[in-house]
Amino acid sequence: MQYHLNGFSIGDPAIAKPSNGEPTASDIVDVLIVGCGPAGLTLAAQLSAFPDIKTRIVERKSGPLEVGQADGIACRSVEMFEAFGFAERVLKEAYWVNEVAFWRPNENGTGLHRADRIQDVETGLSEMPHVILSQARVHDFYLDMMHRSANRLVPDYNRELVELTTDAKAEYPVTAVFRCLDAKDTVEVIRARFVVGCDGARSAVRKSMGHALKGEAARQLWGVMDVLAVTDFPDIRLKSVIQSEDCGSILIIPREGGYMVRMYIELDALHGNERVADRGVTAGMLIAKAGDILAPYSLDVKDVAWWSAYEIGQRVCDAFDDVPDTERAIRTPHVFIAGDACHTHSPKAGQGMNVSMADTFNLGWKLASVLRGQASPDLLHSYSRERRAKAKELIDFDRDMARLFSAKPKNAAEAEQFQTYFKKHGRYTAGVETRYDPSLITSPNDHQHLASGLKVGMRFHSAPVIRLGDAKPLQLSQTIKADGRWRLIIFAGAGDEGQKGGCLATLCHYLIDDPSSPVIKYTPEGQDIDSVIDVRAVLQSSHRHLKIGTLPKLLLPTKGRYGLIDYEKVFCPDGAKDCDIFDLRGIDRERGALLIVRPDQFIAQVQPLNDLAGLSHFFDGFMLS
Amino acid sequence: MQYHLNGFSIGDPAIAKPSNGEPTASDIVDVLIVGCGPAGLTLAAQLSAFPDIKTRIVERKSGPLEVGQADGIACRSVEMFEAFGFAERVLKEAYWVNEVAFWRPNENGTGLHRADRIQDVETGLSEMPHVILSQARVHDFYLDMMHRSANRLVPDYNRELVELTTDAKAEYPVTAVFRCLDAKDTVEVIRARFVVGCDGARSAVRKSMGHALKGEAARQLWGVMDVLAVTDFPDIRLKSVIQSEDCGSILIIPREGGYMVRMYIELDALHGNERVADRGVTAGMLIAKAGDILAPYSLDVKDVAWWSAYEIGQRVCDAFDDVPDTERAIRTPHVFIAGDACHTHSPKAGQGMNVSMADTFNLGWKLASVLRGQASPDLLHSYSRERRAKAKELIDFDRDMARLFSAKPKNAAEAEQFQTYFKKHGRYTAGVETRYDPSLITSPNDHQHLASGLKVGMRFHSAPVIRLGDAKPLQLSQTIKADGRWRLIIFAGAGDEGQKGGCLATLCHYLIDDPSSPVIKYTPEGQDIDSVIDVRAVLQSSHRHLKIGTLPKLLLPTKGRYGLIDYEKVFCPDGAKDCDIFDLRGIDRERGALLIVRPDQFIAQVQPLNDLAGLSHFFDGFMLS
Ligand SMILES: Cc1cc2nc3c(=O)[nH]c(=O)nc-3n(C[C@H](O)[C@H](O)[C@H](O)COP(=O)(O)OP(=O)(O)OC[C@H]3O[C@@H](n4cnc5c(N)ncnc54)[C@H](O)[C@@H]3O)c2cc1C
Ligand SMILES: Cc1cc2nc3c(=O)[nH]c(=O)nc-3n(C[C@H](O)[C@H](O)[C@H](O)COP(=O)(O)OP(=O)(O)OC[C@H]3O[C@@H](n4cnc5c(N)ncnc54)[C@H](O)[C@@H]3O)c2cc1C
Repeated sequence: MQYHLNGFSIGDPAIAKPSNGEPTASDIVDVLIVGCGPAGLTLAAQLSAFPDIKTRIVERKSGPLEVGQADGIACRSVEMFEAFGFAERVLKEAYWVNEVAFWRPNENGTGLHRADRIQDVETGLSEMPHVILSQARVHDFYLDMMHRSANRLVPDYNRELVELTTDAKAEYPVTAVFRCLDAKDTVEVIRARFVVGCDGARSAVRKSMGHALKGEAARQLWGVMDVLAVTDFPDIRLKSVIQSEDCGSILIIPREGGYMVRMYIELDALHGNERVADRGVTAGMLIAKAGDILAPYSLDVKDVAWWSAYEIGQRVCDAFDDVPDTERAIRTPHVFIAGDACHTHSPKAGQGMNVSMADTFNLGWKLASVLRGQASPDLLHSYSRERRAKAKELIDFDRDMARLFSAKPKNAAEAEQFQTYFKKHGRYTAGVETRYDPSLITSPNDHQHLASGLKVGMRFHSAPVIRLGDAKPLQLSQTIKADGRWRLIIFAGAGDEGQKGGCLATLCHYLIDDPSSPVIKYTPEGQDIDSVIDVRAVLQSSHRHLKIGTLPKLLLPTKGRYGLIDYEKVFCPDGAKDCDIFDLRGIDRERGALLIVRPDQFIAQVQPLNDLAGLSHFFDGFMLS
Repeated sequence: MQYHLNGFSIGDPAIAKPSNGEPTASDIVDVLIVGCGPAGLTLAAQLSAFPDIKTRIVERKSGPLEVGQADGIACRSVEMFEAFGFAERVLKEAYWVNEVAFWRPNENGTGLHRADRIQDVETGLSEMPHVILSQARVHDFYLDMMHRSANRLVPDYNRELVELTTDAKAEYPVTAVFRCLDAKDTVEVIRARFVVGCDGARSAVRKSMGHALKGEAARQLWGVMDVLAVTDFPDIRLKSVIQSEDCGSILIIPREGGYMVRMYIELDALHGNERVADRGVTAGMLIAKAGDILAPYSLDVKDVAWWSAYEIGQRVCDAFDDVPDTERAIRTPHVFIAGDACHTHSPKAGQGMNVSMADTFNLGWKLASVLRGQASPDLLHSYSRERRAKAKELIDFDRDMARLFSAKPKNAAEAEQFQTYFKKHGRYTAGVETRYDPSLITSPNDHQHLASGLKVGMRFHSAPVIRLGDAKPLQLSQTIKADGRWRLIIFAGAGDEGQKGGCLATLCHYLIDDPSSPVIKYTPEGQDIDSVIDVRAVLQSSHRHLKIGTLPKLLLPTKGRYGLIDYEKVFCPDGAKDCDIFDLRGIDRERGALLIVRPDQFIAQVQPLNDLAGLSHFFDGFMLS
């Protein structure tokens, strides 16, 4: 955390000084977000980082979510929480999924035994663990963060979207009409430059655009319950998959706090036109079924904190914004949908909340760049393209998973097949496999060999380093905050310590002095040199030897009203580790590599240090000066 | 964190349900704390863990500290913050002291060069780093914690203690009179069972007992300032000691936030009756002096956040409570003093805040045990004895340190002597060397060889383990929270997995079933089995092999209104580490060892697993049933 740049100030550094703007409850805004689920709150939290953007977030319910819904938080989401600045709160409260157990009937078809027990997340896949925490608590952390921002953003509850219209020629093209649920016969009208529908599976925003969720419902009926129970099942505090001989299967997810447990229980398939409600599922039914599957182990449920029953549906929407593919060349979007509003999944792979948050983490910085005049509105097309491809891929994965999960394993071989699938897709469910196709903001990976472990189109995979200025060991990803900035990460070649004439010095010199440098072109007059593009360097020398004095000026930039020096731009390998970041991420030690990292931590380009034209060309593709 | 034991509840699990007691602003209380410095707040936070204890904390100032004073937080204090539940907040905001640089004039007496650069804290000394954070922020974290407690404890500001009297025979023996600084000519009278004077170096509580701080003032004059500055001194973000040829020395402490720096600057010694104020020290003088010492490096101070000038004084009080040594046998204390009220130090070793907090961490659980009827009031004598010995030792250390720091090194050899001293005492300043003498609550270390790295009388030195129930890797110390409970930590012998007839099973059986077991004797009827003495076990088998089913019942206790099972009592070695906890802490693998750990994390006794008489004898020495 860096603070006091513009003078010492007292109190909690995570609470921003209030901005003097108009109140956020204005009826003319830059971005209007409909819905306070994970998608809406991630977007609101992201936008709250920019005091100059006027955001409102509106929700039908009368207050924050208190209980239930999703609970699985993939490694990638925890990485994102770190960028938002509250990962440590999640890590402290959550249950950590360390291992997974697989239970099956004994050879003779009776009872249950533990057939396998594996590590949940492959070693080194992420610097963050896979954890379980109530969706309600995740919401709380976002709400806290929004409330600490300069604009003190808080949701407006009791507002139900009833109508949405667009007039492309207006300065605020979208008009939204809300029914005020706390005041009879009252409506509120809000006009916005952009509206984002984060209003869940029955999205009114989606309907207003005439889009529909497509795909077949899988007709499997599942029940979920959060319980406090006493059992002699030994793995009750491990994530466990139990496939019984005759009674179906169950997924056990231990919950935060040490006592509560979530159980996902398979119920009988739905037939014909039957709907979930027709079954009259009750908590008692779920408990009885769970007891049957767990037998011969006992299950004595003492308290049901929450429960629900639903049909699994894997569905996705054709477009995530209001521009038909045929019109992409002539207009840019004003209305977007995100999260369950444009794709739904079974909860089996625990993706619903994670993918919804990833949607708006993708969208947030793009909206901010356009609104702040940094990027061309064309950038906004990439949201629907990138996230729809991801959603479709996920739907396929999810469908396979759900099928395997529900199919009664006929024999040990089939059961093992399930386990194999489960293991293989650990990377996938960890959320770190997302890969965006080449576009304006994702270069074709011509130079991938310079950093083979840092894949273009994928999230920046962190590794440990030592910060030169203060010798602090940290994860390099800790430098990539959710602040809307681009990062250039320079991995210096062997022997390059910034001396004159070397690649590092030449590159830094270009970046800070050349009129064609993106840093020069796109940083507004009077702003800090790293306010739009933040340059960091990782050198190969030990931090004990490297001399600060020989570093290029760009890596010791002077900032703020006092021209103080920022000492947090340069990193060295962590000598205490067997493998350093160059080894771990396959970086060409001889030539080094230059990474362009997007504000959402995805790698946009890997290139040689000396391809200055390539560098400026990339930014010129979408940035505005 | 464990929660939901007595039923699911929504919201932040760190916020306790409010108790229905009377408001805390009552004028009759169990404990009255005078002063909101680190000592007072640590005590208040500790006592706020007990809803049944009525505590008030009263402060002369009109509100919380906002700026200045101490900033060094020793490893041991961070360990303590972890027990209080806010270490992660400190770790996130603070500057981490990773290395220390030593600067001296060049051989020819001109300029400056870095003579050495060392690791600040020896590897493995603590699981926590040495950090730097404003004392004001530490106060904030305590205030937050108090405010979240069941009693919603908040300080009463604007109250100056003017008189304190004791009537040993009264139910509430101590009467305190406060001047209300926010209401002219008003006083408030509070009566208490115990009063703790945490009212700083000029303590009114100390004076009311007729005690005085003794020791000579060292007559060295020092200035300290927190500044935002631009300099070309390369180690400005490292803790640095700079000893100039002719201008004295300076200690640089980088501060949190990446930009601010604290400088401790030596000024000329005071002569005769001269007082600090006589010098008319100004911030400008400090800046000029710092510039001289740092030359040839430049120093351009842009903003002074805080500064102060003071004379170094190493002084300590004869007793830390109101019982003369001659009367120890016949009465127990009602009034205590802690922190600067009973000992003062130069800030050089950064001990003031740390030792003050350690004082009241020592006292808090003792007061709580006595007030809750768990322990005999005799226990209270140990506070003055334990902490006074510590303070005296520290004064000696501090005096040496200050002398070395101020002495102009005549030659390289002398300068090196300073560095050697500095290194050697890293353990000391880390706060982990405190060792209490044998007493009621610290056994003579007859069996130290069973766990040679877990020293009786010293703080429990943590090591990594895997929790059996959920396979979570953690530090064993994370199980020792500041909740007033005693811990029995059972290190099982080789091959002992809890099977019948083994040492572990026999011990657990004794603890849960035998009328002479301290767990049985001292746990009040109707309370959870671990509410007074919390039993944990570390086994030698891998967590993947160990069977939960064969563990003794005591290690899977049923708790709370529903009789839920607590799965967090058993730990296994961390297989991913080269050395496991048995190696790291020198535990006898063959025989195992039983540790008794005090509520303040100090080790009270190391003994064989089968010495059941020794175990009960220890608790019988001071506990009440
Ligand atoms: C009842 C329920 C149970 C679930 N259980 C699980 C589970 O067990 N496991 C799992 O992994 N996932 C579960 N999910 C899915 C998971 O919660 C979602 O995938 C995730 O919340 C999607 O986030 P979102 O922000 O896109 O939408 P949501 O979280 O659905 O948020 C949409 C928000 O928009 C609001 N809204 C809707 N319409 C309007 C309107 N017209 N005007 C204003 N506001 C509106 C809603 O009130 C809601 O707060 C469950 C979802 C629901 C609804
Ligand atoms: C001005 C100052 C500068 C310091 N600078 C440094 C430094 O640079 N480096 C360093 O390591 N340490 C420094 N210290 C020392 C460090 O702050 C102390 O060692 C530490 O705060 C001791 O904690 P404490 O709780 O015992 O006492 P204090 O922090 O002194 O707290 C005592 C509290 O009691 C209150 N009080 C006093 N009398 C009364 C009364 N009659 N009635 C009610 N309330 C009363 C005071 O207002 C104060 O809030 C400084 C201390 C001071 C006062």
